[in-house]
Amino acid sequence: MTKQSVYLDYAATTPVDPAVAAAMRECLEPDGNFANPSSSHAFGQEARRRVEEARAQIAARVSAPPGTISFTSGATESDNLAIQGAMLAQRDHGRHLITSLTEHKAVLDMAAAMEKQGYQVTYLACDSEGLIAPEQVEKAIKTDTTLVSIMHVNNETGVVQDIAAIGALCRSRDVLLHVDAAQSIGKVPVPLDEWTVDIVSLTAHKVYGPKGIGALYVRPGTRLAPLLHGGAQEGGDRAGTLATHQIVGMGRAYELADTEHEARELAELRDRLWIGLSAIDGVRLNGHPTQCSPHVLNVAFPGIDGESLRLGIAEIAVSAGAACNSAAPEASHVLSALGLSDALAGSSQRFSVGRFTEPADIDYAVERVTAEVERLRQLAGAAPAWCTN
Amino acid sequence: MTKQSVYLDYAATTPVDPAVAAAMRECLEPDGNFANPSSSHAFGQEARRRVEEARAQIAARVSAPPGTISFTSGATESDNLAIQGAMLAQRDHGRHLITSLTEHKAVLDMAAAMEKQGYQVTYLACDSEGLIAPEQVEKAIKTDTTLVSIMHVNNETGVVQDIAAIGALCRSRDVLLHVDAAQSIGKVPVPLDEWTVDIVSLTAHKVYGPKGIGALYVRPGTRLAPLLHGGAQEGGDRAGTLATHQIVGMGRAYELADTEHEARELAELRDRLWIGLSAIDGVRLNGHPTQCSPHVLNVAFPGIDGESLRLGIAEIAVSAGAACNSAAPEASHVLSALGLSDALAGSSQRFSVGRFTEPADIDYAVERVTAEVERLRQLAGAAPAWCTN
Repeated sequence: MTKQSVYLDYAATTPVDPAVAAAMRECLEPDGNFANPSSSHAFGQEARRRVEEARAQIAARVSAPPGTISFTSGATESDNLAIQGAMLAQRDHGRHLITSLTEHKAVLDMAAAMEKQGYQVTYLACDSEGLIAPEQVEKAIKTDTTLVSIMHVNNETGVVQDIAAIGALCRSRDVLLHVDAAQSIGKVPVPLDEWTVDIVSLTAHKVYGPKGIGALYVRPGTRLAPLLHGGAQEGGDRAGTLATHQIVGMGRAYELADTEHEARELAELRDRLWIGLSAIDGVRLNGHPTQCSPHVLNVAFPGIDGESLRLGIAEIAVSAGAACNSAAPEASHVLSALGLSDALAGSSQRFSVGRFTEPADIDYAVERVTAEVERLRQLAGAAPAWCTN
Repeated sequence: MTKQSVYLDYAATTPVDPAVAAAMRECLEPDGNFANPSSSHAFGQEARRRVEEARAQIAARVSAPPGTISFTSGATESDNLAIQGAMLAQRDHGRHLITSLTEHKAVLDMAAAMEKQGYQVTYLACDSEGLIAPEQVEKAIKTDTTLVSIMHVNNETGVVQDIAAIGALCRSRDVLLHVDAAQSIGKVPVPLDEWTVDIVSLTAHKVYGPKGIGALYVRPGTRLAPLLHGGAQEGGDRAGTLATHQIVGMGRAYELADTEHEARELAELRDRLWIGLSAIDGVRLNGHPTQCSPHVLNVAFPGIDGESLRLGIAEIAVSAGAACNSAAPEASHVLSALGLSDALAGSSQRFSVGRFTEPADIDYAVERVTAEVERLRQLAGAAPAWCTN
């Protein structure tokens, strides 16, 4: 059979939807909406109109008023602004942050930076399926706790936390809640009109929008110290020229993200993949079998070196974990938090499906992974599993 | 005559060059270089190749090695990272920053934020033509000075500072120099192989590249604390997914920016504009007549309310100053630093020309501005100049 390229790394980034690209192209035309949206002349005001249209599209997708959405350069900046901004703005009330061991590095590294500045951070552990119980949050809240930061959909395992319950709890204790929802849009609903959440990180490039643009939902009345200084853009929350084509692309991407319809199709693809892979001897699912996003499947292949497996199936794009950490050789901090040994974490692969994944891609991936695992196991021969690495 | 739209606000932002848009479009195709450049699979590595190609194009334009260029979300983030990053990283050596009153708000607002954190800042005044003498920098340097931040081309007046001399001075006193060169590329050479400069802010959207992408040149060995945390991108200098299409666009834009050729054409356009406008009674040039960039012309129209003038010539896009400040009603801080009264600063217009400006655009603007100034002066009648506002 001929080799084909299969992209199963939608959790790392997605291609831009053709409809999004078309909307962006308009702004990139010499006669398009190229002006600075902060300019008061007609050129600028036309660009501003497009920016506000996009803001409304994004707000609508998360059931929030448009005025609560500020643009950033992506989820990393959104997470950083949320945590540093909220902690600095409330520093007279308290200096304690609660987050979890399975957060994205943009949250964990910012939390570590806050610790260096003299703030205290509690890192909640999850259970073996990746879940954090609202009671854990409750127990960790102290009199000087000002912020809780818990992600919605985990980027490595797809595990979905109970944000509704955690939000209600935080509200009752008068503590702010930040939620990283970078992986959620188009996969799992983000009903900000139902949740009592104060700050939410959003991004475009996980949902068929462009890279380099994100947003932050900030509940009216929530005070944030700015991360970027200089210029009165975004009501002072975030300085810097608004990137019209990027914002228009994000708006169109959010408009297109029909969660209900897409989630069903994604779940079918993921189930097809799991049914295929679970026939391999000894494989296990990392994460929660049902409280999970339909686009991610993280699988451990005991006794297999993950890097060798990825090299063996090089025409299929999967990943060890977050792309942002691919330069780092250590085991995934998320899988370690689930209790996996370094060897088991190192054997694991994150598969993630998306809008352009076909059932045939899944079947091909199952066939290739199955064959490669068998080949690697045969190579290892009679050696014990722990020495195949 | 029929009204036409004329864009003379290239210093606020430029349209994207068609060749840049074409390069970006490739990355936005579903089969294009959409993958995460930090992913280790083949899709990611192909995107990484495009990122590194662009990095080399940008480095070549400023005569620097590619490894010295890190990507950011634009000049605001670059300026913020340069100042906060350098000050925090050297805080054990000293906590004194020197900058000038005519810097961009991204520098001034960050400097103010550093003051709130307990750092000392000296703000140098310029002369009436906008220049800062290297001797002023020398006099301001104290034993605990760690950083000087002086912009190359002023965004409101086009005044060009003597970075070669200031750089040599800073080096001799063992103080770091940061230069905001956001307005320079394609207009005034930025010879980093000749200057002794440590950190330089660059952006794409002032030179026919996309908005939302910039870069920071960091001389090898210069320590910077990161502004954004989370992920090992850009050698730890800057976390966040690399936006391939944006970076590719910036690279192509820098490759296209043929400073020598373009500067000549821009100077001709600006001279044509100044010859036309200087026929208006009482007008004066804000800035330096020769130490200036060829793309900016800032003109005061004594006795005229600038906002009324802009409304009267609404089909011509000019600005009161920086677009980032257009939400703020107060007089330009740059023109105030040059010694202009609020009334004179308020009468002033920044005209800026670019790659797509035609001589006919200039002639139309001269005709319309001349007529509108005359009309406004007639409306004001015999009233003294100070009461026309």
